[in-house]
Amino acid sequence: MQHNRVYLDYASTTPVSPEVLKAYKGLLDVWFVNSESLYQEGAQLHQLMEKSRLQTASLLNVRANEIIFTSGASEASSLAIKGVAFRHLEKKGHLITSSVEHSSVTNCFRQLEELGFEVSWLSVDSSGKISLEELKKELRPDTILVSVMMVNNEVGAIQPIDDIKTYVKKHSHAFLHVDCVQALGKIPVDLKDIDMASFSAHKIHGLKGSGVLFCRQHVDLMPLICGGQQEFGRRGGTENALVNIMFAKTLRLALESQKKGYEHAKMLNDICVEELSKMPEIELNSTSDGLPHILNFSCRTMLSEVLMNALNTRGFCISAQSTCHSKSKAPSFVLKAMGYSDQRALSSIRLSFSHETTKEEVLQFIETLKECTEKYGTRL
Amino acid sequence: MQHNRVYLDYASTTPVSPEVLKAYKGLLDVWFVNSESLYQEGAQLHQLMEKSRLQTASLLNVRANEIIFTSGASEASSLAIKGVAFRHLEKKGHLITSSVEHSSVTNCFRQLEELGFEVSWLSVDSSGKISLEELKKELRPDTILVSVMMVNNEVGAIQPIDDIKTYVKKHSHAFLHVDCVQALGKIPVDLKDIDMASFSAHKIHGLKGSGVLFCRQHVDLMPLICGGQQEFGRRGGTENALVNIMFAKTLRLALESQKKGYEHAKMLNDICVEELSKMPEIELNSTSDGLPHILNFSCRTMLSEVLMNALNTRGFCISAQSTCHSKSKAPSFVLKAMGYSDQRALSSIRLSFSHETTKEEVLQFIETLKECTEKYGTRL
Repeated sequence: MQHNRVYLDYASTTPVSPEVLKAYKGLLDVWFVNSESLYQEGAQLHQLMEKSRLQTASLLNVRANEIIFTSGASEASSLAIKGVAFRHLEKKGHLITSSVEHSSVTNCFRQLEELGFEVSWLSVDSSGKISLEELKKELRPDTILVSVMMVNNEVGAIQPIDDIKTYVKKHSHAFLHVDCVQALGKIPVDLKDIDMASFSAHKIHGLKGSGVLFCRQHVDLMPLICGGQQEFGRRGGTENALVNIMFAKTLRLALESQKKGYEHAKMLNDICVEELSKMPEIELNSTSDGLPHILNFSCRTMLSEVLMNALNTRGFCISAQSTCHSKSKAPSFVLKAMGYSDQRALSSIRLSFSHETTKEEVLQFIETLKECTEKYGTRL
Repeated sequence: MQHNRVYLDYASTTPVSPEVLKAYKGLLDVWFVNSESLYQEGAQLHQLMEKSRLQTASLLNVRANEIIFTSGASEASSLAIKGVAFRHLEKKGHLITSSVEHSSVTNCFRQLEELGFEVSWLSVDSSGKISLEELKKELRPDTILVSVMMVNNEVGAIQPIDDIKTYVKKHSHAFLHVDCVQALGKIPVDLKDIDMASFSAHKIHGLKGSGVLFCRQHVDLMPLICGGQQEFGRRGGTENALVNIMFAKTLRLALESQKKGYEHAKMLNDICVEELSKMPEIELNSTSDGLPHILNFSCRTMLSEVLMNALNTRGFCISAQSTCHSKSKAPSFVLKAMGYSDQRALSSIRLSFSHETTKEEVLQFIETLKECTEKYGTRL
């Protein structure tokens, strides 16, 4: 990233931390063998990877044999959701998810609907949160799986996972899967009473192509990627050992700076909210009880596409909605689910911060936003 | 790898070529943005990746929109086989594969059998090859998919893919998937009349976590990893752009040295065969019409495990069977399918060569093998 550019898209992806990058390059220089091979180099590499698995498990307060390394969080979520559902292909069954999940989750449930499963899509309120009452109504004796994200990737809404898990555990036999991608390294993630959880490295200053599915041993999972003995037989393919080795370090660094990073994001978020509130054309879509690292707003006088272009030309890297839908012309389905109009859902901007974001960058952004809306915005 | 170690396990994995490693590290220093993001950095990175897709397609003589980047060949094969079969979950249907496929393929078909699909497992002769006659008998009007590997990973047998594709194309509506992992960069791979093919980077001196599924546009594929707009909607998840960018270079280098590498492997193979034939305790499992890069033999006086350990202690990195089954105590299912006894299938050693392998290393291996069998082998 050039020095005159301002990156405010950390919810999309993050730069690899210098420590992780240096260590990874060092590993690349030394190791190439297959971590499953039996000669001493294979055994040594295997040990390094298992050490990372153990550390990852320890940092997440779970067991090492509950950590499955994957190629990313989309694979992790697909494995969790379809891995469980495909064990019920004959009788099908009932599934619950929310209407604001990440596309990897949403599209798994759409596939399962096409295959004959019944899916309850929980609605959200104007802050992006589901209601426990609706979940209570939808949960049935034949519910196989409940999947709800911890933090929404577009608006930062924090779901009531503690209430959800307590209720699901007590009142059903359903497995609970939680997409923790946007929560990890930002707020505490407690996996107690959660059966499966998805994590990504590249959202926490780690490498791309690297994810983890936490999956308890009692969950009967049909492997998605078939193969040999790797990952407890739950995920085939030659292990991407060096990338998996880096996961533990990535996670440790993220957790070490979590508290400080949260306060820093809160400070930046407060400044933005204060400034944006002064602009009559701006409507905030994120609420104050959400994750401070993500701030979503709409501009009543400009469509996302135009505003993003104008901001890009002036040196700002920001997104309108999830990057997975960046090329879609459709309004954000998250904002639509929150009850907003097409117009508002077509005019969203998502800012996302990290510990690297400075106050100056944020103030610079606000100034430029004002300039853009004045220059290109329609009259209010 | 230390200098006093001899690596003869290139069918398991290969060292990353210095050019690829250097270029990859250079990319890691510069790029971190999401290749799907709309600001200029995202667009530029996207272009680099699409250039790699185009070059890969061009090197394989196919179209760019037929190249799907995956996390590896196991994912590619799983996507091909289950992606097609899952479109027929209601009526199920008939599938054909061979009894000597890679575990990623074999285990997909086992899963599909459990789900109610009918699978014909083609037998092989003592050289590891299927017979076209058996395929002709098994192919039916309701056959959905035929999946046969180009080169076997344990013994190097080359399947009659040209005959297979001509027949399947002419006499059925089945899609044909070919696992080309061990063929790529070693013998010419002609994708004409093939619908889907799997490739891996780390078997041709590329990066781990990197594969390609070639899939023609007319194949209706159910995505395995769900997500957004990535990879033509056929494979979700944030693109591992830098790794995908390296695929084209990896492939180009492999194809450029293919002819020379083949002759070199043939020379090494000839030396080995000549020397091994002089040893009464050795039985060759690879035949002379197979890929010269892979040479499989059994030792009548020692089990694989013991011999591998002895060779490892003396500086040799070699496998007994596929690394995906390295920790299994079961006899090689490939050798069993070729009609060999449990004893023979428990005593196999797989040597595999690359352009880096020297004549001296091979002669050293033969000497050490003799020493080991003399010291530890039972009497004949």
